[in-house]
Amino acid sequence: MSNKKENFLKKFRSHREVMNDLVAVIQEDKKTYKPTESSMEVGELANHIVESTYTFARLAADQSPAKLFDENDDTDLKSRVAAYTQETEKLLASLSEEDFEKTIDATNILGRELPAEAILQSALEHEIHHKGQLFVYVREMGHTDLPFFVARG
Amino acid sequence: MSNKKENFLKKFRSHREVMNDLVAVIQEDKKTYKPTESSMEVGELANHIVESTYTFARLAADQSPAKLFDENDDTDLKSRVAAYTQETEKLLASLSEEDFEKTIDATNILGRELPAEAILQSALEHEIHHKGQLFVYVREMGHTDLPFFVARG
Repeated sequence: MSNKKENFLKKFRSHREVMNDLVAVIQEDKKTYKPTESSMEVGELANHIVESTYTFARLAADQSPAKLFDENDDTDLKSRVAAYTQETEKLLASLSEEDFEKTIDATNILGRELPAEAILQSALEHEIHHKGQLFVYVREMGHTDLPFFVARG
Repeated sequence: MSNKKENFLKKFRSHREVMNDLVAVIQEDKKTYKPTESSMEVGELANHIVESTYTFARLAADQSPAKLFDENDDTDLKSRVAAYTQETEKLLASLSEEDFEKTIDATNILGRELPAEAILQSALEHEIHHKGQLFVYVREMGHTDLPFFVARG
């Protein structure tokens, strides 16, 4: 019988796998692409997704926020995404079933106290939202053979 | 203490409210806008979101699929979205707590049998994904004062 951790890891991976597929087609020299003047650049968008999910995961694990790369770091996009994915996986894997139900003080980021599982659900919804945007960006950048929005099976 | 129905309705509404805000700024004569040749038109995208969520909700409620509008219907976009939202709300409100855990034969749409709550979770993720895309479209159409991706509080 599946437990909360297995279920969440499975769901996280089914979406992050697709995120990785999209990032794989973004050439490093094209990472400043943006659809409009007020839009995020595609590189910023991809970084925002993986950095945010990692931040939410740290919060759910009751750890203080930490970025893996500072503002001036020039690590390429694919390496950043891979690093954040690895560290997020490690965090999620470290949680026990009881940790999922633990009440976390999420006042700073989400405005109130929440169970860890609700924080993780928010992280997932945020990732899905921005990944949808990434699909539009990547199509505009000329890639039309795109995966389904979530990995199935 | 919240139950599954209240929790899901709350979550559905927090996202559908934002969907409605986006649709509100799409002028009917601009509904053919699309970012690229291979993209869905914005009107098709909005219709796809609300029609799909309604379809998933019918499946979760163990009812056969039904569209509210056929291919040639010329009902304006805002009215379609409102109609689908209303009917989806009615379906969700009709579910009991036990209905959420009921196993549904979702072979046709999702490839296997699933509990109703998993079907509804898929519906939500699908809506969030495409709503993220709608944000990009609407920004490209000239609207830069956009809401947060989910209604809070």
